[in-house]
Amino acid sequence: MSLLVIGSIALDTLETPFGKVEYAVGGSGTFISTSASYFYDDIKLIGIVGTDFPNEELEFLKSRNIDISGVLKHPEKKTFHWHGKYNYDLNTRDSIVTELNAFEDFNPEIPASFRDSPYICLGNVDPEIQLKVINQLTNPKIIMMDTMNFWIEMKKNKLFETMKHVNIISINDSEARELTGEYNLVSAAKRMKELGPEIIVIKKGEHGALLFNGNNVFAAPALPLENVFDPTGAGDSFAGGFMGWIAGTDDTSLDNLKLAMIYGSAIASISVEKFSLEGLRELSNSSIEERLNSFKNLTQFDFPVNGKSNN
Amino acid sequence: MSLLVIGSIALDTLETPFGKVEYAVGGSGTFISTSASYFYDDIKLIGIVGTDFPNEELEFLKSRNIDISGVLKHPEKKTFHWHGKYNYDLNTRDSIVTELNAFEDFNPEIPASFRDSPYICLGNVDPEIQLKVINQLTNPKIIMMDTMNFWIEMKKNKLFETMKHVNIISINDSEARELTGEYNLVSAAKRMKELGPEIIVIKKGEHGALLFNGNNVFAAPALPLENVFDPTGAGDSFAGGFMGWIAGTDDTSLDNLKLAMIYGSAIASISVEKFSLEGLRELSNSSIEERLNSFKNLTQFDFPVNGKSNN
Repeated sequence: MSLLVIGSIALDTLETPFGKVEYAVGGSGTFISTSASYFYDDIKLIGIVGTDFPNEELEFLKSRNIDISGVLKHPEKKTFHWHGKYNYDLNTRDSIVTELNAFEDFNPEIPASFRDSPYICLGNVDPEIQLKVINQLTNPKIIMMDTMNFWIEMKKNKLFETMKHVNIISINDSEARELTGEYNLVSAAKRMKELGPEIIVIKKGEHGALLFNGNNVFAAPALPLENVFDPTGAGDSFAGGFMGWIAGTDDTSLDNLKLAMIYGSAIASISVEKFSLEGLRELSNSSIEERLNSFKNLTQFDFPVNGKSNN
Repeated sequence: MSLLVIGSIALDTLETPFGKVEYAVGGSGTFISTSASYFYDDIKLIGIVGTDFPNEELEFLKSRNIDISGVLKHPEKKTFHWHGKYNYDLNTRDSIVTELNAFEDFNPEIPASFRDSPYICLGNVDPEIQLKVINQLTNPKIIMMDTMNFWIEMKKNKLFETMKHVNIISINDSEARELTGEYNLVSAAKRMKELGPEIIVIKKGEHGALLFNGNNVFAAPALPLENVFDPTGAGDSFAGGFMGWIAGTDDTSLDNLKLAMIYGSAIASISVEKFSLEGLRELSNSSIEERLNSFKNLTQFDFPVNGKSNN
């Protein structure tokens, strides 16, 4: 019951109001697979790194029980490099440098032994590549995709084609609005459902995330944090926690999708407390349990019985 | 165990992308007391209307069991009039006209029989007036106040003085940031606690509301609605539902504050589905129950026992 993860593997230079790191490991594939590894132990990563990618970072992924035999090493080019600078509010950022490098040649052939994976998480890459991956699958049960404004603007038709083949889309609120032309998120989710996926996850950053499934809607608020250090990878951490939980439980009932929303939110809230992947390096079960309890306290209440509280 | 409500009573002209109403009843006192009346039946309203205020609107408030013997009628001036125009996203609005009229002379003397009210909701009025009300109280148990950017900018010191005497402040996220100079809402809540109130409610519009109490935080998401017709009064409806529930249960435990957040959110979500006060005119118990169930489905989940869901 493998979870197959496809995404970028990057070396990021990140500037936030709290500091700067240079060439720290990042990328959607890295964040998704690492986050998922805290909820499931049969994860296969597909990606590409360059000549400069640190070997110890590949070892780290292996130490998380992630199968990296599908990660190619480019013989000549360097690793995908992104340099981002966050503004004071941490909600907006500028891309200073984007060097695709090895990632430009990313054209994944899924290893034969990976093709029957039932759970698939397609990180934010070119929708043509996402579709190419889908076409190689022999036994897909649940496919989740992410995307971004760049693909909405540059390859909308390809994106629509890919959306026809996925079960879940995970997308930012502003991107959902841009994709559908609907300002209202309920309307945007409806429109996206018409395009293919039956489950819509709209990520709202510090305001949490919404799940739309059938006529049901579920809201997972973000944990209010005093010290958000680096939002890089928050959405991918969310997706990894979400799909890691789904793959580990093999259950897509509404009740279990709600849990996936909470587990994804919990791991994302841990991720943003340190720079790049640092927050997700060595998490103990108890630190994840503790964060899940914070979410429980944050959101759960008891309706009164006969006008009085249960408690 | 009366709930004393102080606030404006207005005639609003409202333009939204969906239509326009002219001289419809509005104002913080109206929305707070009407919303609260669905959760509690001993509500006393303090306010002032002008010569043009429709008698049937006073009768409506009385029909909700609201004691309006503290509502003055100005002998000469017209009712406070606000004309607002909402933008396409419904999150921003322009004030086209603000005519204080009778409200300019609002200088409430609390009737002697009202002064021992234990629960008090101070709608968004001049902090000097809020303080004057507080100074007339003989038996306050829980005082909640609202405010707005106008008072933060014009009367910050008076606002700080008033905050020293209240238990709960209800405030928008942007106003919380402006009041405290803290962008981060956890930091803003901490700062506000230092200024007096032990319970902080930060309203985030379509993203719901946060409660800070001691070291605890609770998030009530807003119900995602496809048809938001008119956001006017949403924050006041929230405050009314919140304080109506608290007064009715006489319980400020954390568990009951969480319920107050949900009840406030539920009545606010009903309020915005129609123009001005129309959504709150004739609510049946079952329509409120139904909305509360929507909030339950929106937010509640069951953690798994031994790795498997309870359900």
